[in-house]
Amino acid sequence: MEIQIAVAKTNKYATSESGDTLEVVERPNGGVSVVLSDGQTSGRGAKTISSMVVRKVISLLAEGVRDGAAARAASDFLFTERNGKVSATLNILSADLQTGTLVITRNNTTPIFIARDETIECLSGESGSIGTARNIRPSITEMNLESGITIVVYTDGIAHAGSRIGQSLDICTLLESMLEEQDPTPQEIADTLLHEAIRLDSGRPNDDMSIVVLRVSPQSPEQIRRMTVRLPVADQQVPRLNSSQENEA
Amino acid sequence: MEIQIAVAKTNKYATSESGDTLEVVERPNGGVSVVLSDGQTSGRGAKTISSMVVRKVISLLAEGVRDGAAARAASDFLFTERNGKVSATLNILSADLQTGTLVITRNNTTPIFIARDETIECLSGESGSIGTARNIRPSITEMNLESGITIVVYTDGIAHAGSRIGQSLDICTLLESMLEEQDPTPQEIADTLLHEAIRLDSGRPNDDMSIVVLRVSPQSPEQIRRMTVRLPVADQQVPRLNSSQENEA
Repeated sequence: MEIQIAVAKTNKYATSESGDTLEVVERPNGGVSVVLSDGQTSGRGAKTISSMVVRKVISLLAEGVRDGAAARAASDFLFTERNGKVSATLNILSADLQTGTLVITRNNTTPIFIARDETIECLSGESGSIGTARNIRPSITEMNLESGITIVVYTDGIAHAGSRIGQSLDICTLLESMLEEQDPTPQEIADTLLHEAIRLDSGRPNDDMSIVVLRVSPQSPEQIRRMTVRLPVADQQVPRLNSSQENEA
Repeated sequence: MEIQIAVAKTNKYATSESGDTLEVVERPNGGVSVVLSDGQTSGRGAKTISSMVVRKVISLLAEGVRDGAAARAASDFLFTERNGKVSATLNILSADLQTGTLVITRNNTTPIFIARDETIECLSGESGSIGTARNIRPSITEMNLESGITIVVYTDGIAHAGSRIGQSLDICTLLESMLEEQDPTPQEIADTLLHEAIRLDSGRPNDDMSIVVLRVSPQSPEQIRRMTVRLPVADQQVPRLNSSQENEA
């Protein structure tokens, strides 16, 4: 089989920096983890918080720390650094080859969808943000790593899309119709959901938006790992250097 | 414009673990870095070394440390940890939006190719591995971040492909013909080069092989960042858990 992960991410309209941070890290005993955090508010301040949280989590995961322990550590760290005054959401989505499981770690009120073939389940139990109290616990869901599973995780910018016009995104129905009709790639799922969310915000996202889709596909034609990253850059973002240079630094 | 990065990676034939480690990390002041290390020998021991090196580098980059300083720090760290007895190659490829440049940091005898439109340049100056001496310096190349640039970085498993049958991969010619004929995506370039290298090793890679291709594309239709990861898993790699479980951890 093949573990396929896709991410689509955009900023709040007219802000140059997203408060959402997402990183993917290889697990030291096999497999891969996606870590997603949304810092309180948006822009530079939120980015500082969410990247601090994600950095702490990926460095712990890379050392072999289990997901739940890494989430607790990140919460205590943020609580200590900011005296409990700043919160962040945290999601960790892991394909753990050592245990043969998918592990979903959640400190976020935003729900997570899990589809097995065409049955869709929603994880929406109580689960708070990290950083605001001692002893914050993540909610953890673990299942066998089997082909046919699709998991969709997103930040609240997606959940609240359309709220200004009294509408909201019905992710469950959208996901169901996509899975019924075609065999979509995770990138197609992520792109469709993000485009719908942006449309509900009239083309001007009201908040940072990030979506992660993980699929376990039955085929694995060749033992080749692949990764792609696409990062759009606005021309005004890029300062100029005078000439190409090579030097021993 | 859009910064596009693609990676293709496979293990030495009949080994379950690659000695090459590659991670992508967001730069705190804007942009993205790819960090690639190949640990001495192959298998578990090499993996421990290369992942130690990459972890050190990505944690420094995430704190805002410049690429050259991060490479020197990783060298000193490996030298101290292993008493100078173990070496690793290191490449850092960064699209730095703060300076508006592409930065190539190289501690590796394997060359790097830079194509601007259809002119291909090869960086093959002297540059040694890290970890075996004090004061090891990386070779650093910096150029304006402009559309039309393609950079290809790879590990020695690609460079030495075919050596058992007295052949070798002519990456420059292959790259030239791909860029002349079509407008290939970075993933197509990486896949083509990796397939050619595997073919030269008669379908059984003689060493771990990793390729990174970065392209700066002129179009950037929408301000959406995207990432995909594809991780093939052999069935025998996956242990079984009995049932799905949800619990407060």
